[in-house]
Amino acid sequence: MRPFNPKRVLVGEPLDTARLGETLLPKRLALPIFCSDPLSSVAYATEEILLILALGGVALLHLAWYAAAAIVFLLIVVIASYRQTCHAYPGGGGAYVVSAENLGPNAALTAASALLVDYVMTVAVSVVSGVAAITSAIPSLGDHEVLLSVGFVALLTVMNLRGVRESGRIFALPTYGFVLVIYVMFAFAAVRLATGATIRAESADLPIQEVSEYTGLAVVLLALRAFASGCTALTGVEAISNGVPAFRKPKSRNAATTLAMMGVLSVSMFAGITVLAMVYRVHVAEDPTELGLAPGTPTSTALAQIGRATFGDWHFLFYLLQAVTAGVLVLAANTAFNGFPMLASILARDKYAPRQLANRGDRLVYSNGIVLLALAAIGLIVVFDANLTRLIQLYIIGVFVSFTLSQAGMVRHWGKELASPATPVTERKRIHRSRAINAVGAVMTSVVLVIVLITKFTHGAWLVIIAMPLLFVGMKGVRRHYDEVAREVAVPAAARPRTPARHHVVVLVAAVHAPTLKALGFAKALRPDSLTAVTVAADEEEVARLRAQWEEHAVDVPLKILHSPYREVVGPILGHVQELAGQDPAGVLSVVIPEYIVGHWWEQPLHNQNALRLKARLLFTPGVTVIDVPYLLESARDGAGPEGDLYATGGAGEGGGTGRGRG
Amino acid sequence: MRPFNPKRVLVGEPLDTARLGETLLPKRLALPIFCSDPLSSVAYATEEILLILALGGVALLHLAWYAAAAIVFLLIVVIASYRQTCHAYPGGGGAYVVSAENLGPNAALTAASALLVDYVMTVAVSVVSGVAAITSAIPSLGDHEVLLSVGFVALLTVMNLRGVRESGRIFALPTYGFVLVIYVMFAFAAVRLATGATIRAESADLPIQEVSEYTGLAVVLLALRAFASGCTALTGVEAISNGVPAFRKPKSRNAATTLAMMGVLSVSMFAGITVLAMVYRVHVAEDPTELGLAPGTPTSTALAQIGRATFGDWHFLFYLLQAVTAGVLVLAANTAFNGFPMLASILARDKYAPRQLANRGDRLVYSNGIVLLALAAIGLIVVFDANLTRLIQLYIIGVFVSFTLSQAGMVRHWGKELASPATPVTERKRIHRSRAINAVGAVMTSVVLVIVLITKFTHGAWLVIIAMPLLFVGMKGVRRHYDEVAREVAVPAAARPRTPARHHVVVLVAAVHAPTLKALGFAKALRPDSLTAVTVAADEEEVARLRAQWEEHAVDVPLKILHSPYREVVGPILGHVQELAGQDPAGVLSVVIPEYIVGHWWEQPLHNQNALRLKARLLFTPGVTVIDVPYLLESARDGAGPEGDLYATGGAGEGGGTGRGRG
Repeated sequence: MRPFNPKRVLVGEPLDTARLGETLLPKRLALPIFCSDPLSSVAYATEEILLILALGGVALLHLAWYAAAAIVFLLIVVIASYRQTCHAYPGGGGAYVVSAENLGPNAALTAASALLVDYVMTVAVSVVSGVAAITSAIPSLGDHEVLLSVGFVALLTVMNLRGVRESGRIFALPTYGFVLVIYVMFAFAAVRLATGATIRAESADLPIQEVSEYTGLAVVLLALRAFASGCTALTGVEAISNGVPAFRKPKSRNAATTLAMMGVLSVSMFAGITVLAMVYRVHVAEDPTELGLAPGTPTSTALAQIGRATFGDWHFLFYLLQAVTAGVLVLAANTAFNGFPMLASILARDKYAPRQLANRGDRLVYSNGIVLLALAAIGLIVVFDANLTRLIQLYIIGVFVSFTLSQAGMVRHWGKELASPATPVTERKRIHRSRAINAVGAVMTSVVLVIVLITKFTHGAWLVIIAMPLLFVGMKGVRRHYDEVAREVAVPAAARPRTPARHHVVVLVAAVHAPTLKALGFAKALRPDSLTAVTVAADEEEVARLRAQWEEHAVDVPLKILHSPYREVVGPILGHVQELAGQDPAGVLSVVIPEYIVGHWWEQPLHNQNALRLKARLLFTPGVTVIDVPYLLESARDGAGPEGDLYATGGAGEGGGTGRGRG
Repeated sequence: MRPFNPKRVLVGEPLDTARLGETLLPKRLALPIFCSDPLSSVAYATEEILLILALGGVALLHLAWYAAAAIVFLLIVVIASYRQTCHAYPGGGGAYVVSAENLGPNAALTAASALLVDYVMTVAVSVVSGVAAITSAIPSLGDHEVLLSVGFVALLTVMNLRGVRESGRIFALPTYGFVLVIYVMFAFAAVRLATGATIRAESADLPIQEVSEYTGLAVVLLALRAFASGCTALTGVEAISNGVPAFRKPKSRNAATTLAMMGVLSVSMFAGITVLAMVYRVHVAEDPTELGLAPGTPTSTALAQIGRATFGDWHFLFYLLQAVTAGVLVLAANTAFNGFPMLASILARDKYAPRQLANRGDRLVYSNGIVLLALAAIGLIVVFDANLTRLIQLYIIGVFVSFTLSQAGMVRHWGKELASPATPVTERKRIHRSRAINAVGAVMTSVVLVIVLITKFTHGAWLVIIAMPLLFVGMKGVRRHYDEVAREVAVPAAARPRTPARHHVVVLVAAVHAPTLKALGFAKALRPDSLTAVTVAADEEEVARLRAQWEEHAVDVPLKILHSPYREVVGPILGHVQELAGQDPAGVLSVVIPEYIVGHWWEQPLHNQNALRLKARLLFTPGVTVIDVPYLLESARDGAGPEGDLYATGGAGEGGGTGRGRG
């Protein structure tokens, strides 16, 4: 019978590496997997614009048209640029790879820091805002926002650990459902408005408290700030260009097509929602008192107001809208669960991150990266108490750092291609056009970055501005460490393995029992130049008992007894071993430790603690090697019979060991 | 230069085991170490009595005389009983040992569960109430009670990890200071009252809201409940009998004398404080509204009221009283820091607790027990939000469970002595007297236990009533596990070490560098019957590079290359090793893994992750042994030179290995 294994139940059976090909994504699954973040952000981007403009009073709300138009334009430019990247870099890597190739390692690491921070923020912000949507619908859950958010992150983690294709299927429904319900809402609105209905949001008659005090430059700045806030609509656009290798062949073309599909959906939904918000006269404010309401009055999101106004008596459609919105927001975090581990594995491959981030786990996903992302996001959610308003301040800085670097890198890329004599003349026109697109993008995203930095710095963004350089320095440090180690372990071509002159073996024993006999037998199989057994005894009584056991079992290995009146084990043995190792610098010393192997994790602390502490110290002793001889206890043997041949009964007990070593 | 080691700075240099004798305690240090808990509890015991009686109105307050008298009597009985225990059981162990010898293992484990819970509660309650005293004096710290409490527990942990004698010195001052200030207060009061002054507490004229509705049996029950609450004065009395081995010789007599000294101090301070509380007419209530005050009005503790009234204009003496009270309360937790690790080590010796709790650490204290206690107490403080009122409900159940069992065990002990024909007639009178004392104590403590259980169950004590059986079952389980393992590894007298017929060695390599060459050289020194090197390669390019390196360094060990297109390392190697192990069931297989040893903990995650995962799997493979060949990187070498003789340059590179094994 197979033992119960919670990991298998959670993440499924291990997949064969040969099945990696099968997990490549068709476009219809790649879209929900990579695009739930940019698609879902239309649920709050319009609201973010209106929230800022409301500070300037009703008179300035019309600026939303310009801000939205600028965002649509920026979205198109950025998507167009990343489409070029998909073709230029079929191996994937997005901003990091583009920066590395065109702007050098420091720009690449800056982009990587920004992206890593941004992925963590995506998980935290998306999940928290999804949970906020749920708790708005079911107010009784309002006290458990942290718990719910952490629960959703855990759920996403398990889903992603199961493997990329299965998660794609799970995510397809809510993402496509969200798009569908939004379009149904547009159709409803179009029909009702075309037939002469006048639709107003529930907040249309609420006063926006502040009368505009903004004039001249201040108006321009407010509009820019509104534009910057609305740029949350752009988050996650780069995920596809990072994930090109996960697409089915032809990878680049499929990725570019998916990006274009996402652009069409994103632009149309964002534009439609903004138009309806303006037509319905949706008024929003951070604080209900600014709308003349009592403090603490629950207010609906802009999208919920639009939905309620559009669907009117068709309540179930409104609730469906809220449900798919909440669903897609929580799942938007999945974009990061795909992007982060892939970027981390690229960084690990380039030695900027610990090597194990490059390893695929049992289910052919980058398990370590997934877990790392989940832990960081959970930490952020707990520290910020699942407060969306505070979290969102940290959000888009990383996005625009990577956008700017990526697009600047693309400008340089096209420049290099134009400079290359190998580039055919027929291509030059296309390249000039691409470079223009990227240049516009680079300028626009860098302007947005500056605006975001200025407007959000004091609202918590300083945390990101500290975190990014720390990551940068950390990754540099990891690379330096790996480089140093590589230099240190490098050997000249003439280097040969050197067999030590002598091999001394010490077997640690506590009493004579099966694990001891197995270890002693194994030690003899090593055919050492000297072999002793060492034990620690607290008093004469114990010494006498050990000697008696030694004689009873006729052990032909000399026994050295170390006296330790208070049963301290590590110190005396360490001292003895160091002394032995010092006696023969040309030889090596192996310390054989019988280790109990138990079958249950909770049995582990009951055994081997001294062995573990001793090992940790012995590893640092030059010239000493530690050999664990495992003894599998019943619970570790998985139903198999006892290790019956671990010792001989009767006679000299020498089953072998007369063979000559090959050394 | 010695590297900076934070552990050494915190806990001091390791002590030689020979110095354990030096750390034995003289009485003047044993008193503050073992008695800060029972001595400090007089600071709140009187108040607990008055709090309960206040429920019955002013008319019942006079019952405090009877309750206090009963507690004084109980205190004397319990102390007298434990003095007998100190003589009867010079090896220490208190309730656990006494129960084990006289009432059997189940009673002993029940006592142990009670004591363990009680020690944790002592730390939590004492520290929290000490912090409450501080925050009453400095209200601005009132928001940080959890942080302060955890900080004090951490401070006590570090102090105790430094070793028992040094902590005794640190603790002597506040404990003796507390006793001194209380006696100075008594002298002040005696002089003022004798010279005709009328002293009244600030609360003397505050009405106790409720008029007595208690009559007949209800009055008796209320008095019993008041008595039970006042029994907090008894907590910690057993610590000395547990700690007899820590005393200087003659251990038993010194311990009994110290216990008597503590009894005199405890009884006189408790009685004096109660007398003054009654004379000054101190009124207290859980809720200020019961005293006719506005909700939230800060009220002083009974002791603070007595101090303020006694010292009058001598403000600095009042503040000194508050300071030493806070100090001794925090330090009372130290009683548990001595008792818990010692009890845990006795339980570990009897195989009821993990073996490492029996080990003394660097500084000759039971480090693991100290850390375990601190973690449990911190957990309790955090979960209960440092709320004293809720914590104190869990407190004295454990105390009275262990008192009852201990004294019942002593009754049985004397019974056995009386039944023994070896007991001289001259002793029988003394034994009869002792048995009578213990019998009275057993009856009284069991009555108190029942009252406490009834009155506190619904106030949170159910948690303790769940925790104790869980501990009991857990300790039983640990014992069963150790017994099973002992049975499993036992061997017949005829058992001899059996040397395996053949020894096969596999060296894992990733590339040819210094650690690989060292591992290969070491593997040859094992003189195995077969030796191969195994590596994993993702593609043909990698295979070619490895083969080239193999030739360049003229490695005369056959190289087996496993193909793993996605660089999955663990699976392919595990499969290969299991296949090899299956080919020769009579032989053993060693897997040699070159391991990078780094000098900084933060470098650890950058290396050996695959090796660690592989080792964890290989340990469960029967017939396979893992050999780590450590390669010390520069940072681990502590300034020493490189391991220059790890490989030979030029020639066959065979520095030895021709010697014949002794096996």
